[in-house]
Amino acid sequence: MGCSHEDAGLAAKVLLAADLRGIDSHGVARLSGYVRLWEAKRINASPLMKVVHETPSTAVVDGDAGLGLVVAPYAMQVAINKAKNVGTGWVSVRNSNHFGIAGYHAMMALPHDMIGIAMTNASALVAPTFSVERMLGTNPIAVAIPAGQQPAFVADFATTTASNGKLEILQRKNTDAPVGWVQGAEGNESTDANELKKGGSMLPLGSDREHGSHKGYALGSIVDIFSAVLSGASYGPWAPPFPAYVPMPENMPGEGLGHFFGAMRIDAFRTAEEFKQHMDNWIDRFRNAKPAEINNKVLIPGDPEREMEKERANNGIPVTGSVVEELGTLAQKFGITL
Amino acid sequence: MGCSHEDAGLAAKVLLAADLRGIDSHGVARLSGYVRLWEAKRINASPLMKVVHETPSTAVVDGDAGLGLVVAPYAMQVAINKAKNVGTGWVSVRNSNHFGIAGYHAMMALPHDMIGIAMTNASALVAPTFSVERMLGTNPIAVAIPAGQQPAFVADFATTTASNGKLEILQRKNTDAPVGWVQGAEGNESTDANELKKGGSMLPLGSDREHGSHKGYALGSIVDIFSAVLSGASYGPWAPPFPAYVPMPENMPGEGLGHFFGAMRIDAFRTAEEFKQHMDNWIDRFRNAKPAEINNKVLIPGDPEREMEKERANNGIPVTGSVVEELGTLAQKFGITL
Repeated sequence: MGCSHEDAGLAAKVLLAADLRGIDSHGVARLSGYVRLWEAKRINASPLMKVVHETPSTAVVDGDAGLGLVVAPYAMQVAINKAKNVGTGWVSVRNSNHFGIAGYHAMMALPHDMIGIAMTNASALVAPTFSVERMLGTNPIAVAIPAGQQPAFVADFATTTASNGKLEILQRKNTDAPVGWVQGAEGNESTDANELKKGGSMLPLGSDREHGSHKGYALGSIVDIFSAVLSGASYGPWAPPFPAYVPMPENMPGEGLGHFFGAMRIDAFRTAEEFKQHMDNWIDRFRNAKPAEINNKVLIPGDPEREMEKERANNGIPVTGSVVEELGTLAQKFGITL
Repeated sequence: MGCSHEDAGLAAKVLLAADLRGIDSHGVARLSGYVRLWEAKRINASPLMKVVHETPSTAVVDGDAGLGLVVAPYAMQVAINKAKNVGTGWVSVRNSNHFGIAGYHAMMALPHDMIGIAMTNASALVAPTFSVERMLGTNPIAVAIPAGQQPAFVADFATTTASNGKLEILQRKNTDAPVGWVQGAEGNESTDANELKKGGSMLPLGSDREHGSHKGYALGSIVDIFSAVLSGASYGPWAPPFPAYVPMPENMPGEGLGHFFGAMRIDAFRTAEEFKQHMDNWIDRFRNAKPAEINNKVLIPGDPEREMEKERANNGIPVTGSVVEELGTLAQKFGITL
């Protein structure tokens, strides 16, 4: 595509991190989608990313329409550098694209004994409470917190009841979705995993008003505002769509997708050693909370992905036939041996 | 109790803000609870609050066991001052008590053209996903974002399906709770609003695993860690209980309750004028999202509380008989005319 060797390597690393951690929807399965965006001239393969505004603890980064997979690590590094200097760093990004799994970027903070935070807005698929219009993306939040002997606490979740990836799995299996994941075009209750293709929408975490969907809606909105309104990216229903065949929204109020990153140096609060001892204690206590069923231990955020990473690092990553086919087509197009 | 005139006035202001905004569970109804904590020597009426560690963008505040209603505004002011200097300020607080509504503290940032963030840990009432043990408080998060012509965006919510205040309303009315708010002592589904008195627990936002309770559990955990593990307060199941008659947990790993505050100067990212214009556009667009039912408009976080504030500022705050009685008892005890 014209990416530098370095950028291509980094993008591949971020995609493989998703596959390794079991988030198949955000791994190499997305590669052909990125290529189509590049063909539609919505992705710039050789961006000149830069800091366009800053203070000692903040920056706005312009991603120059680059691959989010490359823009995000650049911006997170700016946040980490600022945290080294003044305790914390906070970077809002405009003019970017889909950045892969949020967890990868948040986890960049861990080797520096920092807490890492990453979020992004995304194509509108989610209806706010009381609405039938798609206004927000699945707008994920990731928070990575270092521990000592224990593995790090890594939360990485869409602010919807279920991620779009989970919905896609049901679509492939031709299975119904649980009540509360999606709604029909009229706001009607639905278990149709294909509801998005029929004018329906995904639901914010909480599913309905009685179960707190206004909280999921607020969370998704905060992600949208921090990522896009603070930076000058396009927000809400104007967020650029991921599928290249979907026309861009009219009257976009900003440039590209937006992200938001944070890095907080642990020793800006207390010594890293003390903190990590208490995180070990926290994790140990929660892991040993009384389970609802014997042999069903309480999990710490990040446990399932880490287990999967171990498994796949040893035994390989299963790739479905349709993805192999797409990779074959890409290989042919770019003259690469698969 | 021995509070300075200034502290007493501030505490009253924070409590009244809750009553005005319709969050009756966090207003003067709590006054007798604070007094009981003071009588049990768990609240220090004349604390020497201080910054015990800091960097240009961070601080840890020791609340000296003061009223959270007083400690929180002190700490939030430290965050605001740091944001003035280096763009953002982040303050973790230990050795504090219940701080009233999170929204009050977050909103302190608004007149400074800053985004305000407030969160706190609290007595353990909530079971993590797959557990029957109460490990987390309802751990609320508030985020206040300034707008221009439009009123500010103010999200303020417990990281549980429903707040404890909502559960208390059902208890007073002797009404069942919806499925998904609480679970029984064995992890069984329950609609008993009094389940907490029978060994049951509240559920994280999402209610069950299938509907994303692991996300609510992760959010509540992040609030706990930012508020208490970063600062050196007591975390998880060791968070000090609000009712003075409940014995303190054994082997507490820190001091008192913990809070976490953030302030981000808008113009550390882009000019406040530009940002506010886009926030007005954001709010206007969301308010006009297609509603599921005619005459049921989409709300912006903060709308219901602001409506209530208008109503009650004009017509007064209704106070239930039992609260009037408690206030009467307090008045008598302290020789004040009710």
